[in-house]
Amino acid sequence: METRALTARTSTESTRDIPEATVARLPVYLRALTTLCEAGTITCSSEELASAAGVNSAKLRKDLSYLGSYGTRGVGYDVDYLRYQIAREIGVTQDWPVVIVGIGNLGHALANYSGFRSRGFRVVALLDADPNRHEEVVAGVDVRPFDDLEQIVKEHGVAIGVIATPALAAQDVANRMVASGISSILNFAPAVLSVPEGVDVRKVDLSIELQILAYHEQRKTHGATA
Amino acid sequence: METRALTARTSTESTRDIPEATVARLPVYLRALTTLCEAGTITCSSEELASAAGVNSAKLRKDLSYLGSYGTRGVGYDVDYLRYQIAREIGVTQDWPVVIVGIGNLGHALANYSGFRSRGFRVVALLDADPNRHEEVVAGVDVRPFDDLEQIVKEHGVAIGVIATPALAAQDVANRMVASGISSILNFAPAVLSVPEGVDVRKVDLSIELQILAYHEQRKTHGATA
Repeated sequence: METRALTARTSTESTRDIPEATVARLPVYLRALTTLCEAGTITCSSEELASAAGVNSAKLRKDLSYLGSYGTRGVGYDVDYLRYQIAREIGVTQDWPVVIVGIGNLGHALANYSGFRSRGFRVVALLDADPNRHEEVVAGVDVRPFDDLEQIVKEHGVAIGVIATPALAAQDVANRMVASGISSILNFAPAVLSVPEGVDVRKVDLSIELQILAYHEQRKTHGATA
Repeated sequence: METRALTARTSTESTRDIPEATVARLPVYLRALTTLCEAGTITCSSEELASAAGVNSAKLRKDLSYLGSYGTRGVGYDVDYLRYQIAREIGVTQDWPVVIVGIGNLGHALANYSGFRSRGFRVVALLDADPNRHEEVVAGVDVRPFDDLEQIVKEHGVAIGVIATPALAAQDVANRMVASGISSILNFAPAVLSVPEGVDVRKVDLSIELQILAYHEQRKTHGATA
């Protein structure tokens, strides 16, 4: 915990209230800015950035105003600087050690997912209850017994845990994570977790994007046959 | 395509314009309503539903007004009926045949993901370019050669394809999907796809939820040490 506290920003900087919906869009802006940056773009208008992020530009400007970023009239936003500001606001300019519990197909896929590493999330341990898995090395990380959780969390100052177990195991894993000091959980298991106050749980629903596609597909299909 | 057209709603019903941000929240409301339904809840207030979905209640009411759902004063929303209305609006009351291309760890995880089937998405085929995979059966579905794509799309009327290949293969797979008649693509590969107008692509970024956790974790850590 100490290393993170040292890199955290000062109290006055981090106490502004940003609406939850804006928080949820910051990673989307960060991704769009990273793409622009990689394409060599130096500055962009709010319209360009809004279009790259898939939101309307009034909302984008409002969101960025919470960060104190207003761009320069006639010039727009400095892509690299805005990217840094947003990354700092989210907290991904610091290093986040993460553990993944459950090394089935999804756990393997997550361990290999390049998008975690490139955003400051470092997988420090892969844990599985199945002793047959303990000889495996996935994405350069040893699979270790689930019972090592407390020790690993303490050693690396892990605050974020990822659950990729079957549904039936998820609550037990969450309980052990919380007991060991983890206070943010990303849950891929199809189970609703109950955790004490102060612990954040987010659930990834892989079907949501498919549903958004279905919504538009339904209208396309209909348009073609109407 | 014909079977979908037959179950589609009439022209006047489906031509209302719903803002994209509202469309993106409909699956979240659907999930919250399904959870309430499973818990035996018959009616709920907009505050209860908003809280279950993690949005503010004014936004929820506005979103639902696009569907013509206003609830009953003093009673709230009929959970089961509102769930049906939203499912119909999204289009998940009909059956969506889906193909998954790329049967690595992520493809396996997606094929086994129960959340697709329970929302009307039926995986009709798993395709992989690697002949060594073609004897496999994953989640009850045979893995078939990628070259069977056209035939399968035609046979099952597939409109939605899921790409779970490595980044380098993704654009080729997208091209073949589009050529075979698929017009909506869910892309899990870390690659930006270029597709003709009229084809929808959505990209799943598994790191977005982690970033939202990091945002709050940063503030918790800070609060504890300030």
